[in-house]
Amino acid sequence: MNIACLVFDQITLLDAVGPVEVLSRIPGAKVELVAKKKELLQSSKSGFRLMPDYVLEDMRAADILVVPGGPGVRPLLKDPAVLDWVRRVHQSSQWTTSVCTGSLLLAAAGLLQGLPATTHWNAFADLERYGAKPVRERVVVKGKIVMGAGVSAGIDMALTLASLAAGEAVARAIQLRIEYDPKPPFDAGAPDRVDDMVLELARGGLDSVSAV
Amino acid sequence: MNIACLVFDQITLLDAVGPVEVLSRIPGAKVELVAKKKELLQSSKSGFRLMPDYVLEDMRAADILVVPGGPGVRPLLKDPAVLDWVRRVHQSSQWTTSVCTGSLLLAAAGLLQGLPATTHWNAFADLERYGAKPVRERVVVKGKIVMGAGVSAGIDMALTLASLAAGEAVARAIQLRIEYDPKPPFDAGAPDRVDDMVLELARGGLDSVSAV
Repeated sequence: MNIACLVFDQITLLDAVGPVEVLSRIPGAKVELVAKKKELLQSSKSGFRLMPDYVLEDMRAADILVVPGGPGVRPLLKDPAVLDWVRRVHQSSQWTTSVCTGSLLLAAAGLLQGLPATTHWNAFADLERYGAKPVRERVVVKGKIVMGAGVSAGIDMALTLASLAAGEAVARAIQLRIEYDPKPPFDAGAPDRVDDMVLELARGGLDSVSAV
Repeated sequence: MNIACLVFDQITLLDAVGPVEVLSRIPGAKVELVAKKKELLQSSKSGFRLMPDYVLEDMRAADILVVPGGPGVRPLLKDPAVLDWVRRVHQSSQWTTSVCTGSLLLAAAGLLQGLPATTHWNAFADLERYGAKPVRERVVVKGKIVMGAGVSAGIDMALTLASLAAGEAVARAIQLRIEYDPKPPFDAGAPDRVDDMVLELARGGLDSVSAV
């Protein structure tokens, strides 16, 4: 089972690593990172420097396509080479997946026209602009397309997909292996559960405050 | 706020990326990846190739030290240069953290002698052998040492630490930003909640089965 994960400068790394940490544990799975250029790229915020394994032209098919999000997805929404690649890999994939604003790229490639879809809570309007019908679900499965909401939702998305692709026993074993028994210290994972000050911080205030 | 994250070949990448995706969003935070050599290294299972920012000798202090785990932590437990570095950075750190089997390295460096500590559920005996007192908690805070249990527990650990280091409003805003509102599709995140077959798969069966 060949898993192709699109990577790019200013990717939100957890969008990719959450699902890949799950999917790479499906017996027989192999992950390849695919990018426009075979050069070191840098993740958003965390600043990890990653080396892709393949350029787009050299990886034209995959059993599972993973499209993560992050600030760096924006320029790709108008990049014909990337949009063509997404359409092409999707054509023969068994599963096409996205996390966070990765679904904007699926939508920009025309794969979500009129379909229920999800993305980061702060990007619903963008998703709608590309013709999808955003729904407030953490994981959306529509045919062979499996989408996770913002960032950390990629773990839930991938466990759902692992179950579909390899059976529930394997999915449960992977969940146990990565000890995914979440206990968030706060109940602040959705915009309707925080006050206005926290919402503003999350919308951009964290980036503009230089110290707290 | 300077965050140093130790990285090494065969790291479990989510151990590092979970906490770093949280901690890097604390206003003013900057993350550096520190390794024995400034060469591309490869993560376990997921196979991401990473380039460290610094070698040990060039990063001798940090406000927050993050020590992730993974199969590649094992050879480091007997590596004097790495153990010395951990002790040295810990000496002046504000916070010293671990995820998963990263706590074995803290213990091997002598930082957990007689202290309550946590690690991956499958590594409790190893942690005890190094003189710590393993407790079944997802996050353990002992003075300035903050530890997460297996792999995905690093997210809960880091949100706890973000609250301690930058206040609850910032921690809640980060939780919202990464949309950490977990909804695992199964209840299989702890060994006492799965049957023997799933437990055996999680203990190593996933690695030995070549296809399902």
